[in-house]
Amino acid sequence: MARRRLVYEGKAKILYEGPEPGTLIQHFKDDATAFDAQKKDVFEGKGVLNNRISEHIMTGLNEIGVPTHFIRRLNMREQLVRAVEIIPLEVVVRNVAAGSLAKRLGLEEGMQLPRPIIEFYYKDDKLHDPMVTEEHIAAFNWASQQDIDDIIALALRVNDFMSGMMLGVGIRLVDFKIECGRVYEGDFQRVIVADEISPDSCRLWDAKTGEKLDKDVFRRDLGNLTDAYTEVASRLGIMPKQNGGATTGPKLVH
Amino acid sequence: MARRRLVYEGKAKILYEGPEPGTLIQHFKDDATAFDAQKKDVFEGKGVLNNRISEHIMTGLNEIGVPTHFIRRLNMREQLVRAVEIIPLEVVVRNVAAGSLAKRLGLEEGMQLPRPIIEFYYKDDKLHDPMVTEEHIAAFNWASQQDIDDIIALALRVNDFMSGMMLGVGIRLVDFKIECGRVYEGDFQRVIVADEISPDSCRLWDAKTGEKLDKDVFRRDLGNLTDAYTEVASRLGIMPKQNGGATTGPKLVH
Ligand SMILES: Nc1ncnc2c1ncn2[C@@H]1O[C@H](COP(=O)(O)OP(=O)(O)OP(=O)(O)O)[C@@H](O)[C@H]1O
Ligand SMILES: Nc1ncnc2c1ncn2[C@@H]1O[C@H](COP(=O)(O)OP(=O)(O)OP(=O)(O)O)[C@@H](O)[C@H]1O
Ligand SMILES: [Mg+2]
Ligand SMILES: [Mg+2]
Repeated sequence: MARRRLVYEGKAKILYEGPEPGTLIQHFKDDATAFDAQKKDVFEGKGVLNNRISEHIMTGLNEIGVPTHFIRRLNMREQLVRAVEIIPLEVVVRNVAAGSLAKRLGLEEGMQLPRPIIEFYYKDDKLHDPMVTEEHIAAFNWASQQDIDDIIALALRVNDFMSGMMLGVGIRLVDFKIECGRVYEGDFQRVIVADEISPDSCRLWDAKTGEKLDKDVFRRDLGNLTDAYTEVASRLGIMPKQNGGATTGPKLVH
Repeated sequence: MARRRLVYEGKAKILYEGPEPGTLIQHFKDDATAFDAQKKDVFEGKGVLNNRISEHIMTGLNEIGVPTHFIRRLNMREQLVRAVEIIPLEVVVRNVAAGSLAKRLGLEEGMQLPRPIIEFYYKDDKLHDPMVTEEHIAAFNWASQQDIDDIIALALRVNDFMSGMMLGVGIRLVDFKIECGRVYEGDFQRVIVADEISPDSCRLWDAKTGEKLDKDVFRRDLGNLTDAYTEVASRLGIMPKQNGGATTGPKLVH
């Protein structure tokens, strides 16, 4: 592997300088963290799976005209993406009550929401990513009103697309998080979907059994995370499922 | 006092049925609570002061055309108000970083905000009044979009009026909370300001010294709450200040 300049190492991914200006290489690690990184573990193969799943979803989004940073996959763990100016918000779309929403508003987990709810969390680890409103975003100029409008429109389209894709393979899209960023094209500025869309950033429940197929498996110690993500990848037709989750059969993870 | 039907007893106030349909009597108690009512005390005279201060502010608001529930004061501790259908939101307007905002967003207490920030908290003691956004309000139908627009317009006008009134007497209006409710007039529905506007529901700092003249005196054990509220009333020309806070002079509190 050629020597590359490291741009940022996060909890789950590494960014390297890309081959051309305005590009980055996004490397998916096997590390999993939860609860403000107080809980940590490594799941062999998670990075490979998330690289493929995020590729699959973002390719689909690009095809229906929802702009994303994804350019192409480079290898098992890496993808080429457009460098963006990240808007410091985690944009959460919720279809079903779960996690912090269920807790904060006293809702039963699994309750279908009357309509999708979009939430913003300010990306700041020291502050533990506090929930914020458009008022805070506007007052501190974290995003312009145009940015916010663009983000909401993107988030709702991603929700529609992913709801369909998941329901098509027997999975209920409970909620997900996206990050968005600005790209500059001459005088023109656009907001596009960046980061990743994977079982690390979604809640995915089996539509029949309710079985969790996402990072909650790790958060709540419900089983092997790699098995759950493999199940998602396999249903989406990305990677063949290993026989009953056993370690026989073709080795997919390097 | 005639026998009256009790409608609701809260932490700081009691509501009785009013003399005419569509009215209530709001009685101000001396009780103070903070931190989800974990901290409690009684301050002789607080109720009398809040009754007078809320009267003073709401009378002014009514005069400039900001509709409030206030009709007239009945006695030292009671006022006649219009019964409203309370919208279950605490509407907070902030001009200066303090309290939970400063903590959540890591801002220095006392920092002037770039613009006023409006926040909504869902009124539910069991859930500890969680902050919510217009998304949650709309999804759960706690208020219609029209209600929200009306509430925001009211909140900003109350902020302008109170900022002026307070600055006029050397007090900085840091933030405040209002509650709003619906009244029905024939086929017509309106949103008006209800509950109270008093040092219990505002942060008021002396413009020169920064001295706190509001419920934070109780929350943070900074001195005698009645003295602080007496100072506010006195500056507003409502009640004469007692000599140096001593118990000599005319007794104002019964
Ligand atoms: N196209 C892009 N251009 C620039 N930055 C990006 C792009 N896509 C994602 N990022 C950023 O790269 C980082 C990915 O690393 P990772 O997700 O592991 O970080 P993290 O530990 O979760 O921290 P963070 O709280 O910043 O997300 C994130 O900070 C993300 O905002
Ligand atoms: N005009 C009005 N019509 C009907 N209800 C009102 C009106 N004004 C205020 N209220 C309600 O009366 C109650 C006042 O009591 P108090 O403020 O002591 O309650 P509390 O203990 O603070 O509880 P809450 O969380 O409900 O405010 C509040 O519930 C308030 O919403
Ligand atoms: Mg991240
Ligand atoms: Mg109250």
